[in-house]
Amino acid sequence: MILPKAIEFARHLVGAALGSGGCAVDATAGNGNDTMLLAKLVGGEGRVYAFDLQEKALDITRNKLTAANLMDHVLLINDGHENMDRYVSERLDAVMFNLGYLPGGNHDLVTKPASTLKAVDISLRLISKDGIITIVSYSGHPGGMEEKEQLAGMLGNLDQKQYQVMHYSFINQKNHPPQLFAIQKL
Amino acid sequence: MILPKAIEFARHLVGAALGSGGCAVDATAGNGNDTMLLAKLVGGEGRVYAFDLQEKALDITRNKLTAANLMDHVLLINDGHENMDRYVSERLDAVMFNLGYLPGGNHDLVTKPASTLKAVDISLRLISKDGIITIVSYSGHPGGMEEKEQLAGMLGNLDQKQYQVMHYSFINQKNHPPQLFAIQKL
Repeated sequence: MILPKAIEFARHLVGAALGSGGCAVDATAGNGNDTMLLAKLVGGEGRVYAFDLQEKALDITRNKLTAANLMDHVLLINDGHENMDRYVSERLDAVMFNLGYLPGGNHDLVTKPASTLKAVDISLRLISKDGIITIVSYSGHPGGMEEKEQLAGMLGNLDQKQYQVMHYSFINQKNHPPQLFAIQKL
Repeated sequence: MILPKAIEFARHLVGAALGSGGCAVDATAGNGNDTMLLAKLVGGEGRVYAFDLQEKALDITRNKLTAANLMDHVLLINDGHENMDRYVSERLDAVMFNLGYLPGGNHDLVTKPASTLKAVDISLRLISKDGIITIVSYSGHPGGMEEKEQLAGMLGNLDQKQYQVMHYSFINQKNHPPQLFAIQKL
């Protein structure tokens, strides 16, 4: 396919924003794929913080990172991403969100609008100039549409002198494919 | 900037869909930049049709193509793109639309919803499997918003088994930056 999926486009944008020695956050470690990408991009001189409320997600992520010899410069944090600023004080070059539930996990445990919006707000304050925040949003599960709409409302009101906010979606699909929001700090 | 402009993203997608020997349409020749791109991509064995109602646009386009020695495999057609099927019978690998008015030209001469939608509909029938249609839409000029909304309505209703329809926009900008619609034939 020529048109990238939301997650593929997110990874492409993060690859353009984040280089060796950079600092990044995976706000939703989940199955660890984004944490792996971030850890590869920042290299041994960089730092990655990965958050997840579910121990299971962090175990999966730790196993992947260890197998790839990438665990040294990654901090796995078993706390909600809305508490990000308790752990992170550096400027961030990239923050990735993958909303919804953990694939293969308990579908009742989903990201919620209030904590998602708080975590995005903290990310907006921590992101460096030219840094990028990507948010892959699913609206097919209960509460998913509400979360997406609240997010779109908040992001649409950001000051255009400070942030550029992009929305990428597929508009003729009945099965609610994921959408991407990406914010670049100017 | 990491986030591409709508026109940059359109050109990237067309570059992925259109190869040497291909066949393409620039539905709005305008200042000839997209026609140039298409002519380079298809090469000497390919074919490009470029439409514009304004002689001035075709003159600018012809001069650019001639200077770049690319005029041989390009047909410039001084007719509306809604009559595309009177001139084109081949399957198309790429069709590019750049809606609105000719930059540097008469701002009263803008693309109109009825003819735009008809031309897009013809393009949907002529596009080959895996081929791509890109539509850069401006909503800042009078009638632009109406054109964009009619287009979004039509594209959002396309059968997802036949087409994948993507929408790319900046959602916090007061000055109506261009948006991109891209349709891939499955």
